[in-house]
Amino acid sequence: MKIIAIDSSGLTASVAILEDDCMIAEYSVNYKKTHSQTLLPMLDEISRMTELDLKTVDCIAVAKGPGSFTGLRIGSSTAKGLGFALNLPIAEVPTTDALAYNLFGTDKLVCPLMDARRDQVYTGLYDFTGGIEPVFNVIKPACALAIDEIIAEINSRNREVIFLGDGVKAFKDRIVELTTVPFSFAAPGLMMQRASSVAALGMQVFKEGKAVPASEHVPDYLRPSQAERTCGTPEEIRSNM
Amino acid sequence: MKIIAIDSSGLTASVAILEDDCMIAEYSVNYKKTHSQTLLPMLDEISRMTELDLKTVDCIAVAKGPGSFTGLRIGSSTAKGLGFALNLPIAEVPTTDALAYNLFGTDKLVCPLMDARRDQVYTGLYDFTGGIEPVFNVIKPACALAIDEIIAEINSRNREVIFLGDGVKAFKDRIVELTTVPFSFAAPGLMMQRASSVAALGMQVFKEGKAVPASEHVPDYLRPSQAERTCGTPEEIRSNM
Repeated sequence: MKIIAIDSSGLTASVAILEDDCMIAEYSVNYKKTHSQTLLPMLDEISRMTELDLKTVDCIAVAKGPGSFTGLRIGSSTAKGLGFALNLPIAEVPTTDALAYNLFGTDKLVCPLMDARRDQVYTGLYDFTGGIEPVFNVIKPACALAIDEIIAEINSRNREVIFLGDGVKAFKDRIVELTTVPFSFAAPGLMMQRASSVAALGMQVFKEGKAVPASEHVPDYLRPSQAERTCGTPEEIRSNM
Repeated sequence: MKIIAIDSSGLTASVAILEDDCMIAEYSVNYKKTHSQTLLPMLDEISRMTELDLKTVDCIAVAKGPGSFTGLRIGSSTAKGLGFALNLPIAEVPTTDALAYNLFGTDKLVCPLMDARRDQVYTGLYDFTGGIEPVFNVIKPACALAIDEIIAEINSRNREVIFLGDGVKAFKDRIVELTTVPFSFAAPGLMMQRASSVAALGMQVFKEGKAVPASEHVPDYLRPSQAERTCGTPEEIRSNM
């Protein structure tokens, strides 16, 4: 079983090809170019390098959100385009789930933090339990919260936590100031979005029969966009016309 | 501070660019091409994608071994070439250390396993301790052992362990049969060599002033090559002439 995975939800653009339990290729870039400049060339690069026959791909996995609105649109458009062209389903993976999955194997509570601007973070709480095949648990699903709120919740759980994501840099002082349980930050290579994590969780979604047709896939923004906050939703705008 | 990192010690070819604590780019391929076909094009790809000015690089980090003899020679030659051309030092990172570092943040014992053929593995034992900035500990440095020997040592330590590396696939039945402590295997995205781990450890080597001039770098094979086992070392061959 072969999956192409895409994550352009944050600062990092990342693509991967997973075949069964073997990561054939992964390519991640955290650079000032926009994802519309990088994502498809990166996918083309790893496809050429691994001589990928697109007909052998079973599913497209994508970080469906939350995240940067523009980034999510680029990722979802790319996934939908591939899904339509190749007649493949889309495995939608919550961005914060995939981020947390970077820390596979930790015994600590995992708290991904994505800078959502307006003093908020996209976040969630996760851990791993079990034996030979560790189970990934979603303790608190993806949500938008004030940084103080998620740290208060972590403190109340009285358990060591590891933070990761671009929110670490944005809110480091607040984290250090407010967190009362033992905590640490992820290593640089695990800190940002990685398509290999989207691929691994996407494979689970696909195997559970929960992948959706390309026509049905939409990104999950969690919050209304700036335009919607200022001007109203498309429905509201139409009803005011 | 900026580091280029290279790992071609095993089946996976991987390159990365680390700037301070930010992973600018990482590209890994686990495909049947030889590293001489992939490594430099991959490095060229991430350099172009991130508009890397080679004059801004401070150090070349390389997985120095153990590993595939041919793979190590390709990685070391590439590192030496870059080091000579750019007048940069080489931060040598033991391959098994870098592999173990993939699991940054785990509380478990970490055991990298690289298939060394002849029923042996290149292995070692590692863990992480400490608080906000976890410390990476080398419990047993890189060595070549029979798979039974390293598992016996793990069993004697009576501590949960997580295995990773291409040796997992090669020796899975033996691991399941012989390991008496709780154990698990790394996720696909963390299972194989990653240049981001070489970069993170290479940065430490560089900061400690332990990087070596390019002229002094040599790979560390740990074992004599097939040719040396059959025909003797270069010194022995010369003395028999």
